[in-house]
Amino acid sequence: MTDRLLVIHGPNLNLLGIREPDIYGRTTLAELDRQITGHGAGRGFDVRCRQSNHEGVIIDELHQANGGSDAVIINPGGFTHSSIAIRDAIAAITPPVIEVHLSNISAREEFRRTSITAPVCAGMISGFGWAGYLLAIDAARRLLDGAA
Amino acid sequence: MTDRLLVIHGPNLNLLGIREPDIYGRTTLAELDRQITGHGAGRGFDVRCRQSNHEGVIIDELHQANGGSDAVIINPGGFTHSSIAIRDAIAAITPPVIEVHLSNISAREEFRRTSITAPVCAGMISGFGWAGYLLAIDAARRLLDGAA
Amino acid sequence: MTDRLLVIHGPNLNLLGIREPDIYGRTTLAELDRQITGHGAGRGFDVRCRQSNHEGVIIDELHQANGGSDAVIINPGGFTHSSIAIRDAIAAITPPVIEVHLSNISAREEFRRTSITAPVCAGMISGFGWAGYLLAIDAARRLLDGAA
Amino acid sequence: MTDRLLVIHGPNLNLLGIREPDIYGRTTLAELDRQITGHGAGRGFDVRCRQSNHEGVIIDELHQANGGSDAVIINPGGFTHSSIAIRDAIAAITPPVIEVHLSNISAREEFRRTSITAPVCAGMISGFGWAGYLLAIDAARRLLDGAA
Amino acid sequence: MTDRLLVIHGPNLNLLGIREPDIYGRTTLAELDRQITGHGAGRGFDVRCRQSNHEGVIIDELHQANGGSDAVIINPGGFTHSSIAIRDAIAAITPPVIEVHLSNISAREEFRRTSITAPVCAGMISGFGWAGYLLAIDAARRLLDGAA
Amino acid sequence: MTDRLLVIHGPNLNLLGIREPDIYGRTTLAELDRQITGHGAGRGFDVRCRQSNHEGVIIDELHQANGGSDAVIINPGGFTHSSIAIRDAIAAITPPVIEVHLSNISAREEFRRTSITAPVCAGMISGFGWAGYLLAIDAARRLLDGAA
Amino acid sequence: MTDRLLVIHGPNLNLLGIREPDIYGRTTLAELDRQITGHGAGRGFDVRCRQSNHEGVIIDELHQANGGSDAVIINPGGFTHSSIAIRDAIAAITPPVIEVHLSNISAREEFRRTSITAPVCAGMISGFGWAGYLLAIDAARRLLDGAA
Amino acid sequence: MTDRLLVIHGPNLNLLGIREPDIYGRTTLAELDRQITGHGAGRGFDVRCRQSNHEGVIIDELHQANGGSDAVIINPGGFTHSSIAIRDAIAAITPPVIEVHLSNISAREEFRRTSITAPVCAGMISGFGWAGYLLAIDAARRLLDGAA
Amino acid sequence: MTDRLLVIHGPNLNLLGIREPDIYGRTTLAELDRQITGHGAGRGFDVRCRQSNHEGVIIDELHQANGGSDAVIINPGGFTHSSIAIRDAIAAITPPVIEVHLSNISAREEFRRTSITAPVCAGMISGFGWAGYLLAIDAARRLLDGAA
Amino acid sequence: MTDRLLVIHGPNLNLLGIREPDIYGRTTLAELDRQITGHGAGRGFDVRCRQSNHEGVIIDELHQANGGSDAVIINPGGFTHSSIAIRDAIAAITPPVIEVHLSNISAREEFRRTSITAPVCAGMISGFGWAGYLLAIDAARRLLDGAA
Amino acid sequence: MTDRLLVIHGPNLNLLGIREPDIYGRTTLAELDRQITGHGAGRGFDVRCRQSNHEGVIIDELHQANGGSDAVIINPGGFTHSSIAIRDAIAAITPPVIEVHLSNISAREEFRRTSITAPVCAGMISGFGWAGYLLAIDAARRLLDGAA
Amino acid sequence: MTDRLLVIHGPNLNLLGIREPDIYGRTTLAELDRQITGHGAGRGFDVRCRQSNHEGVIIDELHQANGGSDAVIINPGGFTHSSIAIRDAIAAITPPVIEVHLSNISAREEFRRTSITAPVCAGMISGFGWAGYLLAIDAARRLLDGAA
Repeated sequence: MTDRLLVIHGPNLNLLGIREPDIYGRTTLAELDRQITGHGAGRGFDVRCRQSNHEGVIIDELHQANGGSDAVIINPGGFTHSSIAIRDAIAAITPPVIEVHLSNISAREEFRRTSITAPVCAGMISGFGWAGYLLAIDAARRLLDGAA
Repeated sequence: MTDRLLVIHGPNLNLLGIREPDIYGRTTLAELDRQITGHGAGRGFDVRCRQSNHEGVIIDELHQANGGSDAVIINPGGFTHSSIAIRDAIAAITPPVIEVHLSNISAREEFRRTSITAPVCAGMISGFGWAGYLLAIDAARRLLDGAA
Repeated sequence: MTDRLLVIHGPNLNLLGIREPDIYGRTTLAELDRQITGHGAGRGFDVRCRQSNHEGVIIDELHQANGGSDAVIINPGGFTHSSIAIRDAIAAITPPVIEVHLSNISAREEFRRTSITAPVCAGMISGFGWAGYLLAIDAARRLLDGAA
Repeated sequence: MTDRLLVIHGPNLNLLGIREPDIYGRTTLAELDRQITGHGAGRGFDVRCRQSNHEGVIIDELHQANGGSDAVIINPGGFTHSSIAIRDAIAAITPPVIEVHLSNISAREEFRRTSITAPVCAGMISGFGWAGYLLAIDAARRLLDGAA
Repeated sequence: MTDRLLVIHGPNLNLLGIREPDIYGRTTLAELDRQITGHGAGRGFDVRCRQSNHEGVIIDELHQANGGSDAVIINPGGFTHSSIAIRDAIAAITPPVIEVHLSNISAREEFRRTSITAPVCAGMISGFGWAGYLLAIDAARRLLDGAA
Repeated sequence: MTDRLLVIHGPNLNLLGIREPDIYGRTTLAELDRQITGHGAGRGFDVRCRQSNHEGVIIDELHQANGGSDAVIINPGGFTHSSIAIRDAIAAITPPVIEVHLSNISAREEFRRTSITAPVCAGMISGFGWAGYLLAIDAARRLLDGAA
Repeated sequence: MTDRLLVIHGPNLNLLGIREPDIYGRTTLAELDRQITGHGAGRGFDVRCRQSNHEGVIIDELHQANGGSDAVIINPGGFTHSSIAIRDAIAAITPPVIEVHLSNISAREEFRRTSITAPVCAGMISGFGWAGYLLAIDAARRLLDGAA
Repeated sequence: MTDRLLVIHGPNLNLLGIREPDIYGRTTLAELDRQITGHGAGRGFDVRCRQSNHEGVIIDELHQANGGSDAVIINPGGFTHSSIAIRDAIAAITPPVIEVHLSNISAREEFRRTSITAPVCAGMISGFGWAGYLLAIDAARRLLDGAA
Repeated sequence: MTDRLLVIHGPNLNLLGIREPDIYGRTTLAELDRQITGHGAGRGFDVRCRQSNHEGVIIDELHQANGGSDAVIINPGGFTHSSIAIRDAIAAITPPVIEVHLSNISAREEFRRTSITAPVCAGMISGFGWAGYLLAIDAARRLLDGAA
Repeated sequence: MTDRLLVIHGPNLNLLGIREPDIYGRTTLAELDRQITGHGAGRGFDVRCRQSNHEGVIIDELHQANGGSDAVIINPGGFTHSSIAIRDAIAAITPPVIEVHLSNISAREEFRRTSITAPVCAGMISGFGWAGYLLAIDAARRLLDGAA
Repeated sequence: MTDRLLVIHGPNLNLLGIREPDIYGRTTLAELDRQITGHGAGRGFDVRCRQSNHEGVIIDELHQANGGSDAVIINPGGFTHSSIAIRDAIAAITPPVIEVHLSNISAREEFRRTSITAPVCAGMISGFGWAGYLLAIDAARRLLDGAA
Repeated sequence: MTDRLLVIHGPNLNLLGIREPDIYGRTTLAELDRQITGHGAGRGFDVRCRQSNHEGVIIDELHQANGGSDAVIINPGGFTHSSIAIRDAIAAITPPVIEVHLSNISAREEFRRTSITAPVCAGMISGFGWAGYLLAIDAARRLLDGAA
């Protein structure tokens, strides 16, 4: 039996592979989602991927995950550092949420080093490029199995 | 003759009664809206209630209240602490706007203690749970009657 | 059977109606206390009003309210922003305390925007002039009735 | 041959000419857009104007300008001071972006004096009312001609 | 009939074209002043250009512009961020003053991002290299014609 | 036998009576200097008045007062808040220095409320318009007579 | 005909001449009050001096000065830096209030350099020991005569 | 021969044993004063205990201790963090003053961690409940005996 | 062929399983090291584990990893937030370093939320208990394989 | 039956009696340890004293006190203000820890006024010279006897 | 063949030997310049010394050193901590500039501890009195010989 | 007769010549120590060089220098910015200590610009690479000869 995993990509991640490849790499979002879906299947997950530049859409998605998903992986992009509303949505739902960042946010501009959303997530993984999503899937597997 | 009252619930309030009931209580948004509508009718208001997780939708609602409503009650949720755009929308319209918070925001986390929107509202009520909305209706009544 | 309600007016409120009427209105403290007493009677309260410019007197009053009153409404005036001792007194007593401000303190000078006392109150109402006291009486009624 | 110019008006600018005319003037957005389009035509630009109160819509527009426009003029309104996501969108696209403000933001409230988006724009013009857009068109002309 | 325009270049701008050309470009001050004078003539201005590394000399120039000039363009250089005395001089005189910066100061070191002088200017233009002066002349024209 | 008193007016004070009369009054510097000289004569002072917009000139004057004057009155204008070099010059000389401000600097913009120079002066007088200079002369008299 | 002048000495000033004479001098409060009364008489003032260590008493005195005095001189002592309630009392009354400090507060500990009360006073005099009170009497004379 | 010891309990300490017993313990003030008096007698002290919620009363007590007591123990309660006037009173008197806190103030809310009064005391003891007063008596004994 | 992996546990981690098990879990360091070694072997790593409470020892270990190891996993414990010397050591060596924290440091005390060492690491994983080390081993595998 | 008490002296305390005797007194560490041991014996303690300049050694000692001692007195010296690792060690062990400082740290340089270690200690004693250790022994006695 | 060395003394250094000799010593500027010139000759430098209290003059000197000198030694005095304009001038010229301070600026008042100019100098020497200039000459020799 | 000079190299300096040679140069520590020893011999010093990554070892060395050395040169490396304990050790010993930095710390990252140790040293030299040690030897010579 598989678990349901929701993966949310925040604003500007639709430009992945195009925008600032020195920081974010050359993989496009479509390729990344294929990798995520495949890796997730291997870990017993039925994965659904979703990208939006709209804060409200991301909040709606998180609400629907309450009952609709067993775990959530989110890269909130620029909203990481400013959105109390997304933080509240994460805190309001039952499935565990794991925060992922492609780049090592500790090593970037001052205003990108603090995450408003991370304190209400289960954990955070940053700096490993797209592989961070795969590690997050493994972490989600362990959390659901009670093995961490 | 009745006045028109718009009540705006900000992000995550659709989860009312479900999310963190220790802080926000067990009343659902539908029940709350029934209470608000009834109490408003008793104070001579034709009440319209609206919830959205989208900042832009809330701004659009506020703009339409300019001419379309005689008073506004708003609980901006997480946007209270970050949205200059909602603040500007409140400042730009004619009907008086009253800010309500279910919990006593002075007693919560540091980042929830400052309201960016309150300085352009007529007044603020916080800490009385859903009863705060009913008190706000009474306050709106007095403001429109010139009795405060 | 009536409940006992203590209303405390802090420093300079004896000048109400005289001092800066653009901010605080033209109602005198005596007129306000008559309104409060009447409105309270209609809500089942036996109201006692007290004004003092002395921090220590206000603390003594709060202590005596422990057992001597069923609810307290306080406008701490200038002490709102500096008195840890009044905060401690509020926190030390059993009856619920509601903080009221005539003006919308969020819209005033920087040093008036933070309340040291509000975090230990049940809730706060600001910006509705003397009507704020009447709203606070209604709020007290609901708190005692367990209806909020 | 003409270049394509996208002009983005952020939140609340649909109220131009109505809202706080002492600060923002009495020209409506429709009148302003006619002026902009005419002035742009005289400088060799095919102008498209767009207003939105939705952060996500603005980000989408910026993404589409990547390939769809040769230059962008943006007045991010209240998002100027809080939206890292719009900043990221500006940084992610190729055409030069010029930031315009109707009022002199240096002379307003503290929280309006810092622009989060300006550091990734080509330049900034503030304080000249609607004429600032016309100056920005001239600046865009020079940038595309390599004459600045 | 022509108006009189004073253009003030602050400290180190005499090194223009020599110092850090990656930031400030390769045009020398003499060449820039020729461009400014020509462009100004085309807009109905009799232009006088002045450079000084001395704060006191710049203040004296501003005082003499009171009656001696119809508009002023100033690039205060390093004094932008520290000179309250120049700010006071700008505030004390009648003709409108426009602040210009060659580089986009929002994108530079922290201590260069705040302008002490801009709040008392009519407006500010930054980031367009020497073309910023020409845009400022157009802005001055509009201000004097009451067309902005 | 008379004592020698140096009175230094800092930047922009040459505009006295012209600039912002609501804040600084309508007396011109020449009239003020006549009043100062007359009042000083009545207190046994041979007064020399000096105005400069140049920081270096003010420092030179202070140095020459070392031996050349028995007391100094200074209104450092905008340099009050930024000039460590003037502070050092005051600290380096023997005659007592009294700081005067026309307006009550405590009641003005944030950046005008702190004086860098006052800590090394004998005392400070602010808020009494040009009369502040006459009070400072009396204070200087008392300091030299050892009567304060 | 004489004017009525109230002089208020704040907390610990009853120890004058005893406490830290290096900072505050060796004159006792009784001697100082004799000097103040005599100097005031010579300037046409009927002087009443009052000392209290109680914040509330000082507020009461200020309220009674509203109608009971023509001018007030106050040395708020340690309350200078913390009492918003005294500030409000000063702002609430009609007669002009002048703030005096024996020592030059700009030159003392960090927490003594900012005065909360000075912004609502007519002016401030600090650093001249007890002579500061005499200068303040002269300033009050000029304020009442409209000669400043 | 016995020495005279004054023990001052600040605001809200009259509620000891009643208020927040988890933090402050269940001993009442009367019981505590008996313990203090007894322990003091055993160390050669004639003890006088005094509690007040009034800042001015505490200052008056400290002044009278100048000559009237040989040592002072003070728990300034909420005034610890805000009263410069009490600090000045402590600094102004001759007998050594020891500060005591029932709870470990380093481990409480941010605003309770800094003591304004401690820098002018001989020493501080915090975190040992009512036993802290007994330790302070021993410390006072050593200070008077010159044995510390 | 295997790669060499060094795992460094910082101060107090020798108490793992004993100290605050609610935060850090009940697994002892010896058990954790067995798990790490086993999981590493499965990923082609020859693992060496080392714990020290000495900053200098950790620096020496990092230096020896330069040439002696192919990758490093470090949990700097309390040094995370204060040790510039460890940061320098990480920056000075060639093998990639991955930072791991058992708890989600974003959700803990203020002073634990900022990592001084993370900016010079390849990436960071926090909040997954001891499983975080296993995820870090997978991340190291990908980094060495060039697959991230 | 005696309890075991560990006394830890932090860095530079081996210089006691030699270094800055005006602040720290003339008693050497050997003499102090004899006093401590004697006083402890009188209170039923078997005392072991330990001094180290090594942060790691102090952490090791604290770890060994877990089971090896019944109470700990620590003067962390310069580590008081910077060592999170020592704080973690104190928090990790069972016996109560009392912090002692020879001088009154509230009255010293800014950076010495905050203790990072005190919040996890039972209490703190500062300002009584070497007698502070003896008071701490008495406090430890009471803590173990449950008499505080 | 000799190199040309410019030595710039900033504001108030003309008072050397007179002003605060406890901090700056008793050597006059003329004597110091003789020492500098002699020591420089011995190191192959043709030295020119220049003192000014005028920020603009110092900037002019630095500009002329571009081509006119092979190395520069500067003691910017009070400008060290405030002059962005001098910083810009140093950054704009080719010869290496060495900053010297007579006193150890790290050990003085807070506002003297940060140098705005040092980041664009080759290096800094402080705390060795006039000998610091001689050490700076040796350092300049090494820089020009490529031996450092 | 020779004096004894101790040279202390702090953490990571054992990597000299290997680590980040663009900042620290290519000279190894062994080569540097040979240069230092030779140059010192020429100035009458018997030099002993010591490197450690352990804070405690450096403190022990400084203590032993009390009596064991006539002067000390120290490059505290990363401890410069965080070690209060080393600062205390420097302050506690008699021989003069000179601080040296290879790079110009004023021009580096924010957290490297402030030295905690420099205020208690005789002086500081930074930015001249390994030559800074030779200049420090000359400075030490002058300090011991009383010639600075």
